[in-house]
Amino acid sequence: METIEPVQWRGDAETGAPWLLDQTQLPQRERWVECRTPFDVAARIKDMTVRGAPAIGIAAAYGAVLAARDRASRDAGLSAIATSRPTAVNLAWALGEMRPLLEHDEDLATCLARAQAIHRADIEGNRKLSAIGAQHLRDGMNVLTHCNAGALATGGFGTALGVIFAAAAEGKRLHVWVDETRPRLQGAKLTAWELARAKIPCTLICDNMAASLMRAGRIDACITGADRITANGDVANKIGTYGVAVAARHHQRPFYVAAPRSTFDLGLRTGDDIPIEERDEREITDDREGRVSAAGVRAFNPGFDVTPGLLVTAIFTERGEISPVDARHVAEVVG
Amino acid sequence: METIEPVQWRGDAETGAPWLLDQTQLPQRERWVECRTPFDVAARIKDMTVRGAPAIGIAAAYGAVLAARDRASRDAGLSAIATSRPTAVNLAWALGEMRPLLEHDEDLATCLARAQAIHRADIEGNRKLSAIGAQHLRDGMNVLTHCNAGALATGGFGTALGVIFAAAAEGKRLHVWVDETRPRLQGAKLTAWELARAKIPCTLICDNMAASLMRAGRIDACITGADRITANGDVANKIGTYGVAVAARHHQRPFYVAAPRSTFDLGLRTGDDIPIEERDEREITDDREGRVSAAGVRAFNPGFDVTPGLLVTAIFTERGEISPVDARHVAEVVG
Repeated sequence: METIEPVQWRGDAETGAPWLLDQTQLPQRERWVECRTPFDVAARIKDMTVRGAPAIGIAAAYGAVLAARDRASRDAGLSAIATSRPTAVNLAWALGEMRPLLEHDEDLATCLARAQAIHRADIEGNRKLSAIGAQHLRDGMNVLTHCNAGALATGGFGTALGVIFAAAAEGKRLHVWVDETRPRLQGAKLTAWELARAKIPCTLICDNMAASLMRAGRIDACITGADRITANGDVANKIGTYGVAVAARHHQRPFYVAAPRSTFDLGLRTGDDIPIEERDEREITDDREGRVSAAGVRAFNPGFDVTPGLLVTAIFTERGEISPVDARHVAEVVG
Repeated sequence: METIEPVQWRGDAETGAPWLLDQTQLPQRERWVECRTPFDVAARIKDMTVRGAPAIGIAAAYGAVLAARDRASRDAGLSAIATSRPTAVNLAWALGEMRPLLEHDEDLATCLARAQAIHRADIEGNRKLSAIGAQHLRDGMNVLTHCNAGALATGGFGTALGVIFAAAAEGKRLHVWVDETRPRLQGAKLTAWELARAKIPCTLICDNMAASLMRAGRIDACITGADRITANGDVANKIGTYGVAVAARHHQRPFYVAAPRSTFDLGLRTGDDIPIEERDEREITDDREGRVSAAGVRAFNPGFDVTPGLLVTAIFTERGEISPVDARHVAEVVG
């Protein structure tokens, strides 16, 4: 299956640059944005031009190539990228892969080759973990997903949506319930867009409808991506993921997570140690036209939540499947 | 405490009319709309100028007075009101109270007096059930509510918010987490507006954040209103209520429902028998400016869900408290 690659390096190592498919403009416009400096990359991560843990990691790797071009601002550039968003660990992981090359003053071509290898490995890993996850989806299933863990969130192909794409490619007829994913509506804007392009039947719902659909027997399985997974299998992902997992447990439906090895942070023991980004309350109180909510009322806007591994039926990685989800099985598969 | 009355009869029985505080315009504008015929009332119920089960019932009672004025279109007028929205039972209940007067050709003053008695009894009932519910809220509590069950949803004072108002009037310091309540945002627009007016501290959240706040120990109790309650204590209420109840059970937090006797439909055995309104999908796919979601994608938009009585800690009514919530206790208190 052909895939979208939302982060692309265009040109050679000396004069080229990463281009990003602007995800704040989708689905209305397919606009591509060039990043000329590592500070551009940091700004585009922060404003969510590029989003999704693995895609952020790849953008960061390409940003490190830009940083390698200018010794004077190298450290400042890397640091701007490193601090652009706190929750997804793929960003820190990708910079960790790139930093030694910059420290050893490797030439730009070597740096770019490394970033491109990270990018290719992400797509390859997604295809592998998707094939593993697809074994759990049967013909005729209704699958719920939350937020966007598709090609747009990764180097290409996707994690949670990758599993759905892989199952569909095997000829399984699926129907996907798409949580709209407030406040930024990545489900309505991005996931629905990807599924429509792939001609996979889907229906958009408000996040608060999933539980009653489960009660009505209309959801057979749930699958999401992840922004960070700790040593015990706790999963930080887009806010609202935890509520889906709680409802899935209540209704005895499987709740799956699909994520590459780069999303694991084995240095953290549990999800309590994951920093949760708090975002501007206007994402909740306002729409495109301005204020919607009652005047003067404050909002609380955490970008992510943590789902305990205990509530996760299985985690699909390119190295295999983790199930049951606990410290021992995490260590066995990705340790 | 002073209360808003969102439905008001202005003038005498012969020439007066019900006026509605237009809830589609709040919180931006406080606009009042006059209904000159029962068909106006039906249209304003359908387009949610007036919403909230008890408020719809009172509007319907006043609409019956308008119907009583014109024998030629009387039945058509009553029927338009009766079919304007299917889920809340207060509408059918109020029409059931008014219909015998019309059938016996009682004079308009008698019809209006009956409608006003229904209105006054609703406010009185809300104050009683709120005093009962307030006993369960302690100083310093964090309380979550979903949708709007305030003065705006009733004849005045409110049910779920009534309980919060009553506790606050007793001097208890509460903080309210307000679910924004997609897709129509009654929490963000109406509940936050009422709480701000009452100077009760509140914070707006997206519906998908409640579960993780419970996990963090930041929600002590949940309380909602109801649109219809069956003989076994199953509760139909705004979509998303069920997910809150499931999360509350998972975290062992109390989940309360506040509703007057007129919300009970003892002719229905369980919630499976309640008709659930399905609304226009554009409420989900579009915002004020137009399409937000990916082109061509369909949405599913049920207006309500059903929470089994088993998940409800207690129901507060003007006749007393129902707890545990089952057929026997429902019959004992409101049968």
